[in-house]
Amino acid sequence: MLTAYRRIFMILPVLMLRTVEVIAQTGPGNDSVQIRRIYNEALDNGKSYENLRYLTGHIGGRITGSPQADQAIQWGKIKMEELGLDSVYLQEVMVPHWVRGAKEKAVIDLPGGLKFNMAVCALGGSVATSGKLTAQVVEVKSWKELAEKDVRGKIVFYNRPMDPEDLETFKAYLDASDQRYKGAIEAAKRGAVGTLVRSLTLSRDNLPHTGAMSYDEKVPKIPAAAISTNSADELSRRLKADPSLLVQLEINSQQLPDVKSYNVIGEIKGSKYPDEIITIGGHIDSWDLAQGASDDGTGFVQSIELMRIIKALNLHPERTIRAILYINEEDGARGGLKYAATARNDGKKHLASIEQDAGGFMPKGFRVEAGPEVVAYMRKWQHLLQPYQLHILAAKQRGIDVAPMKGISKALISVDCEDQRLFDIHHTSADTFDKVSRRELELGGASMVTLVYLISKYGLEANN
Amino acid sequence: MLTAYRRIFMILPVLMLRTVEVIAQTGPGNDSVQIRRIYNEALDNGKSYENLRYLTGHIGGRITGSPQADQAIQWGKIKMEELGLDSVYLQEVMVPHWVRGAKEKAVIDLPGGLKFNMAVCALGGSVATSGKLTAQVVEVKSWKELAEKDVRGKIVFYNRPMDPEDLETFKAYLDASDQRYKGAIEAAKRGAVGTLVRSLTLSRDNLPHTGAMSYDEKVPKIPAAAISTNSADELSRRLKADPSLLVQLEINSQQLPDVKSYNVIGEIKGSKYPDEIITIGGHIDSWDLAQGASDDGTGFVQSIELMRIIKALNLHPERTIRAILYINEEDGARGGLKYAATARNDGKKHLASIEQDAGGFMPKGFRVEAGPEVVAYMRKWQHLLQPYQLHILAAKQRGIDVAPMKGISKALISVDCEDQRLFDIHHTSADTFDKVSRRELELGGASMVTLVYLISKYGLEANN
Repeated sequence: MLTAYRRIFMILPVLMLRTVEVIAQTGPGNDSVQIRRIYNEALDNGKSYENLRYLTGHIGGRITGSPQADQAIQWGKIKMEELGLDSVYLQEVMVPHWVRGAKEKAVIDLPGGLKFNMAVCALGGSVATSGKLTAQVVEVKSWKELAEKDVRGKIVFYNRPMDPEDLETFKAYLDASDQRYKGAIEAAKRGAVGTLVRSLTLSRDNLPHTGAMSYDEKVPKIPAAAISTNSADELSRRLKADPSLLVQLEINSQQLPDVKSYNVIGEIKGSKYPDEIITIGGHIDSWDLAQGASDDGTGFVQSIELMRIIKALNLHPERTIRAILYINEEDGARGGLKYAATARNDGKKHLASIEQDAGGFMPKGFRVEAGPEVVAYMRKWQHLLQPYQLHILAAKQRGIDVAPMKGISKALISVDCEDQRLFDIHHTSADTFDKVSRRELELGGASMVTLVYLISKYGLEANN
Repeated sequence: MLTAYRRIFMILPVLMLRTVEVIAQTGPGNDSVQIRRIYNEALDNGKSYENLRYLTGHIGGRITGSPQADQAIQWGKIKMEELGLDSVYLQEVMVPHWVRGAKEKAVIDLPGGLKFNMAVCALGGSVATSGKLTAQVVEVKSWKELAEKDVRGKIVFYNRPMDPEDLETFKAYLDASDQRYKGAIEAAKRGAVGTLVRSLTLSRDNLPHTGAMSYDEKVPKIPAAAISTNSADELSRRLKADPSLLVQLEINSQQLPDVKSYNVIGEIKGSKYPDEIITIGGHIDSWDLAQGASDDGTGFVQSIELMRIIKALNLHPERTIRAILYINEEDGARGGLKYAATARNDGKKHLASIEQDAGGFMPKGFRVEAGPEVVAYMRKWQHLLQPYQLHILAAKQRGIDVAPMKGISKALISVDCEDQRLFDIHHTSADTFDKVSRRELELGGASMVTLVYLISKYGLEANN
């Protein structure tokens, strides 16, 4: 139940959550009443779910540089304009334009003319193979193993799984993602001709998980693909039986010239401190394999919803609120970098930079990356957040788009969601609208409004 | 993150969860080490998910009295026998046997030969209509409204929604379920000829949600159907325009004679207090519309998994553990009643009766219905549960099968799960395997083993 923590820690008899409203002091300035109003507005009249249905169903996957990304930018701008914000504008940014091309293949010929077709997909940004790349495969589970093995002329198969025992699933993901991100560079340094990377998931299935990878201009760019966990396990078994087997890998991607694109920014001017800025956002782009519903359609529509709720409830924030829809989070973060580069010199004070890019599942609170005095100050709000099962965590935030605001913004904050389900679908063809829960989505939006309401009203400094 | 609460309430720097194992005292008796072992076993080697895949995919929906229910009983018995428990046996019980028959219809004729086909299904246990029942419809949203309106010869349309503002979704469900459970009785008392009940969900969709209803032998038994929320909203609009419109309702169900069925019970005898019993279970039967994956395939397979983990880790519980798969939870609770009737007179001490029938989503803790001294005693375990985000709630438990143990068992306990998603699928054709998360399922199973481990070791009394 959402009341669980209140119940336990206050050792009160079971109370209905809504009682909060009744027992709170009345008056327009009362925080618990305002927060209850925010939640009621989200739960009674929330628009996030229907907006997400449109974004995923009518626009769909929207990888940076694609026509769908352009459509999503225009649609996001219109949705914000409809809210009657003080201003809505596009922030131009040049972005990379990578296209996957024809479906990838990774095949092993078996005796009797049979084939083992592995479930693979190119990692985002990978170069193509020249036709078919045929090579032996070397499996490694650590960087040490990579250093010790002769991988010259071979495909390196990174097969270190996410740690199932780590209850913090997102952390297990981060701990395994080095294979994906720098695997091609490290393999190429040692003369390898390609990489296959075990998909970053705890599921055992046939879905390859794409995601960003990187190259180093000083070493050859070699093709890099993700392989589903089932195919990875099967490949591993076959390699044990026959280390000399040959994989034929085919990737048909292209890195096209950079194109012009945009962040979408909507603003409500602060009634008291207009030059103090709180930004909150999600990202526009998704991977191309599916609809990008969870990642990050949820953050996209919740950021619009936040502005809707502020307007609908006439919250008149004391500080300026900017909802930012960032472009190119997945493969370059150019949108976040551009916003930060501009913010650094615009003479305004950036108080908090908030992002929801954690999947859009049940909200659990906020990861606050800030000085300990800021965290301590925010924790004074804990009694207001507890009825909604939200917590202020002192922790490294995880938003790629707000990361460049480090040193500019007083607090970098990412919304923390229950994430046991996230890596079943993350960066795969399964990231579709049906995986998103309306209640969880609207509760997440309400949690974001609540945080913005509190920061806007009280700032982040004790003497404010 | 699962570590959230530990982090906050202990105001510690961010620690990896697994550190628990390292900083704990060593030795076989150390609880935090044992609990970490339990979780690791579930997360590394868990069988719940593959068992659920079989139960839902190969056996499927298993309404009480159906051949599928019989198959599930036999399969559950075999799965427990495979574990090498001290005993596995069937407990005979006579159960009701209701069958839905041909698909239900509810139609309004529109001008021009068009029809408005509403999405309906019979409530479980409803009598059939005699062919088509054609009648006017009276919409009511409260019992007061029912009492004030003339419903003679009409169909009563109960259209009070679940309260979207109640963050405790399961409570919102319980608060609206009186319409389903006693709607037919109350309507028939006033001369109505049938009922349509708004589906118990916060979703707006086309899925009718079935569920138990009841009759009173003193009033006529009238047919009762659930209607999807979209159809309910549309019907309500049409009634406002034309209160005299006629609905043709067709239900083809049959209540067949009671049949013989079984609870499945597996037992591990206590090493120290064999006559003190801890039961833990889920229910075998589901509704017939879908696979019964969440409700209660999850509790079914988790109860088997619990016994597997106890054996795999050689936990040798001090007290006797019984895993019980109950039959007939959904429409009669005869399995739970039979177990309680037997337990009342078997001369053993029932310490705790535990059930997981809350959907099988992310486990949040345990609703403990017991004396305050028992709850206080269990709360001393909170430091062991907190790393796993589990909490002991003093609250009315919600398991139908363990409810008859009131007055027999010292504590009635239901597993508490995150339930924002539950009522999107509850009692509908959408309650399918793909809605269940492997991680959430295995974590739920681990939480159950943890609770059983602690009760078995420490009992429920301070002087134990």
